[in-house]
Amino acid sequence: MAKKDLIPASLKTILEKGDKIYQPGISVDCAIFGFHENILKVLLLKVPNTNKWALPGGFIYKEETIDQAAYRVLQERTGVKNIFLQQFNAFGDPKRSDVTIHQNRYQAFGIKIPKDNWLLQRFITIGFYALIDFTEVNLDTAAKNEGAEWIDINNINNLMMDHEAIVLKALESLRTQLAYLPIGRNLLPKKFTMPELQKLYETILDQKLDRRNFQRKMIGFGILNKLTETRKGGAHKAPFLYTFNDKKYQKALKEGLYGSW
Amino acid sequence: MAKKDLIPASLKTILEKGDKIYQPGISVDCAIFGFHENILKVLLLKVPNTNKWALPGGFIYKEETIDQAAYRVLQERTGVKNIFLQQFNAFGDPKRSDVTIHQNRYQAFGIKIPKDNWLLQRFITIGFYALIDFTEVNLDTAAKNEGAEWIDINNINNLMMDHEAIVLKALESLRTQLAYLPIGRNLLPKKFTMPELQKLYETILDQKLDRRNFQRKMIGFGILNKLTETRKGGAHKAPFLYTFNDKKYQKALKEGLYGSW
Repeated sequence: MAKKDLIPASLKTILEKGDKIYQPGISVDCAIFGFHENILKVLLLKVPNTNKWALPGGFIYKEETIDQAAYRVLQERTGVKNIFLQQFNAFGDPKRSDVTIHQNRYQAFGIKIPKDNWLLQRFITIGFYALIDFTEVNLDTAAKNEGAEWIDINNINNLMMDHEAIVLKALESLRTQLAYLPIGRNLLPKKFTMPELQKLYETILDQKLDRRNFQRKMIGFGILNKLTETRKGGAHKAPFLYTFNDKKYQKALKEGLYGSW
Repeated sequence: MAKKDLIPASLKTILEKGDKIYQPGISVDCAIFGFHENILKVLLLKVPNTNKWALPGGFIYKEETIDQAAYRVLQERTGVKNIFLQQFNAFGDPKRSDVTIHQNRYQAFGIKIPKDNWLLQRFITIGFYALIDFTEVNLDTAAKNEGAEWIDINNINNLMMDHEAIVLKALESLRTQLAYLPIGRNLLPKKFTMPELQKLYETILDQKLDRRNFQRKMIGFGILNKLTETRKGGAHKAPFLYTFNDKKYQKALKEGLYGSW
């Protein structure tokens, strides 16, 4: 059997009929940030036949919305579903595409992509991001086959095309969002201490925060319930435990942390 | 001379070769908000041969970035330049395109667009917005030929395709931005009163604000200089004049109104 005959049907279809079933020249890419125990990671896939990494991404079917495409692509490639994806920016540098990625993938099956094939044209990609607890995510077999891994945000390198720039821009959007919307409800245990909450913010912002300012600010937002319990077992004075006040947290998600005008 | 021969060269090129010179299936649209003396307007163009209105929009050349396309399109169609455009969302409902808009435009020259022409395919559009003082903008001849007009935001209707949804989403983004970034420097006279500043916010938010809360909040942001002068001539007690503190305004643009963590 020739190498050519070993090509997966899906890859063959994309090459030969992709421009008939997908929107030409446009894709989606997902920057999924995972937080757990003070580490911020991003979900990356190994690019076949290279030493590069990529964000989970894909094409948009002619009959689906951009959002639908993002959720489908993420699920198909990683098994991740039921998370809220936020569209944040479109990336369209005319030189952002790297045709060698596609060429190498097909080269492995002895196929040379014709120069005028849709895969080798310029692509604009629409970026989505999410922030989740990465221990609550099961990467499925498909994902593992794609070499999916959670990579510490401080250790990413060798990303294909402009994917590093996409990650950085997504992170910037996340940090901006931190300034006016609450986060943490799905990232911390139900009961948490103020230092734990502060560490979440410090990890995402990648900077040390002043303990007193942070506490004053957080309490000022009115989204926390202080419990009478304390966290025991530490070397220091047992810190008080907090929970999020669900109703006020929801309200702040809608109106912003600083309330309505 | 047949009607066909009267078609402008640009329209002919778009029909026959558009898919070779532009990115297929993708466009940009600009929601330009104009504020002046407590009225918020949006810049719209009359769609030829219909009673509909449209946002200034257009295609992306194969060799330009999305941002470049947005600035060029806006300038070509309205003469407006040197304003900061903010990308805010991509709109991609598979049913958002309205082929009759294109059909009518070419029908006027006796031309029927072939069904498989690129113009009649699905388009995804990338939205940009800006907020300016509309009295400082000169709509050029091209714009006037396109029936460009500043329309009061409360009186928009009969917009083509999903352009009303784009305006509303742009307005939502603008209002969110108001919650954490300063505005007003290019929209108010150099010296202004607190009620004038408040009216700017009320107009954009489309809601009445509490005078005392607003003043406390604004002064708390630390971006204003209170002058010793007052505005004379009103029936009431002469209100104090303020200016923006340039340095602190710039800082707040970068770090947000509530400062760094």
